[in-house]
Amino acid sequence: MNPVITAFAQAPDGGRGFVRDMRVRWALEEVEQPCSVKLVSFAELKAPEHRARNPFGQIPTYEHGDLALFESGAIVLHIAEQYPGLLPAEPLARARAIGWMFAALNTIEPPVNEFGMARVLERDQPWFAARQPMLKERVATRLEELATRLGEAEWLDGAFSAGDLLMVTVLRRLTGSGLIEAHAGLAAYVARGEARPAFQRAFAAQRAVFEAQTATG
Amino acid sequence: MNPVITAFAQAPDGGRGFVRDMRVRWALEEVEQPCSVKLVSFAELKAPEHRARNPFGQIPTYEHGDLALFESGAIVLHIAEQYPGLLPAEPLARARAIGWMFAALNTIEPPVNEFGMARVLERDQPWFAARQPMLKERVATRLEELATRLGEAEWLDGAFSAGDLLMVTVLRRLTGSGLIEAHAGLAAYVARGEARPAFQRAFAAQRAVFEAQTATG
Repeated sequence: MNPVITAFAQAPDGGRGFVRDMRVRWALEEVEQPCSVKLVSFAELKAPEHRARNPFGQIPTYEHGDLALFESGAIVLHIAEQYPGLLPAEPLARARAIGWMFAALNTIEPPVNEFGMARVLERDQPWFAARQPMLKERVATRLEELATRLGEAEWLDGAFSAGDLLMVTVLRRLTGSGLIEAHAGLAAYVARGEARPAFQRAFAAQRAVFEAQTATG
Repeated sequence: MNPVITAFAQAPDGGRGFVRDMRVRWALEEVEQPCSVKLVSFAELKAPEHRARNPFGQIPTYEHGDLALFESGAIVLHIAEQYPGLLPAEPLARARAIGWMFAALNTIEPPVNEFGMARVLERDQPWFAARQPMLKERVATRLEELATRLGEAEWLDGAFSAGDLLMVTVLRRLTGSGLIEAHAGLAAYVARGEARPAFQRAFAAQRAVFEAQTATG
């Protein structure tokens, strides 16, 4: 039996692969493992059946045999531990790659997410414009630091790893904001991630869900 | 040689153990491993020597032999993989415990952190009061979901794990806000974490740094 992951029936990102199921789809494509995708509507997300999979009512989740997992980072790490291709075999390099997974999700993603959420949830508030420079600055500081560490390297620490996979998915959400575009090195890094055949296959799969939804309704 | 971790020379939390070095101290105490602590001033934090340890200029970092790691989550996971006591041996339970580590840092900590940061950075802004209910509601929703999942259990999934360790450190930061106190089960869960001898030893060690600093001025 293939693992079953969950994704949104109605992706709110216009099929741009910004939703967190993209991370799991991409990881599975990198290690050449198939999966089945169960689509969950916004109403189903907070219902008991899905809460049993994820107490916070979020996607993605991952079910394989007797294992039920949630949290995209944990799912990607689990996949990376099961199949070769996403973590170095050498123990110190492996620990550092996992370090970049946490950096992507705990140092870079929070300010990226706050910046994005304000644009969705607080756009009509009187303070929206006044807070934008601060929110942008928080992201810009992290990107400057990340660009400095990356330098001219292809990936964050040696070969492509699950750390790069998560980092690229986080950075992609800034597309069009000008923040990534301000760092040629980071823009090229994101483009390298997006050019990987596994990314392309994962992107096409999530895009197909969006297009089917648009076509039917 | 013991591992060397970094912590703030001047802890901004009044010695309450809210800074992220507490996670690493606690994890090392749980597995009964000693460490050396290098204190870093705010000025040193953003200087090249510390940036070489952590490109984002944050603490804690972890150096042991040839390994240099940053990100508190990655350091705790590394410790948990090296020594028994923080992750179950059974593979599915181990994967779920790691899932709770990511849930603590990627689902619970971001809204907790935003709530806390607004109180520090935006307290004097005209919109501060108007945004408080929204920021509180984001945290309250997650706590309600977490309390429901925890139910009457002692820990999040079987025995105490690195997932509980991280979750307790995240929840502790809400102490006194009324948000944890609204859920008797969560308050008891945090208290159980704080009552562990390893927590007590780690807390005393970080407290001693604060008290030495206060004494010397």
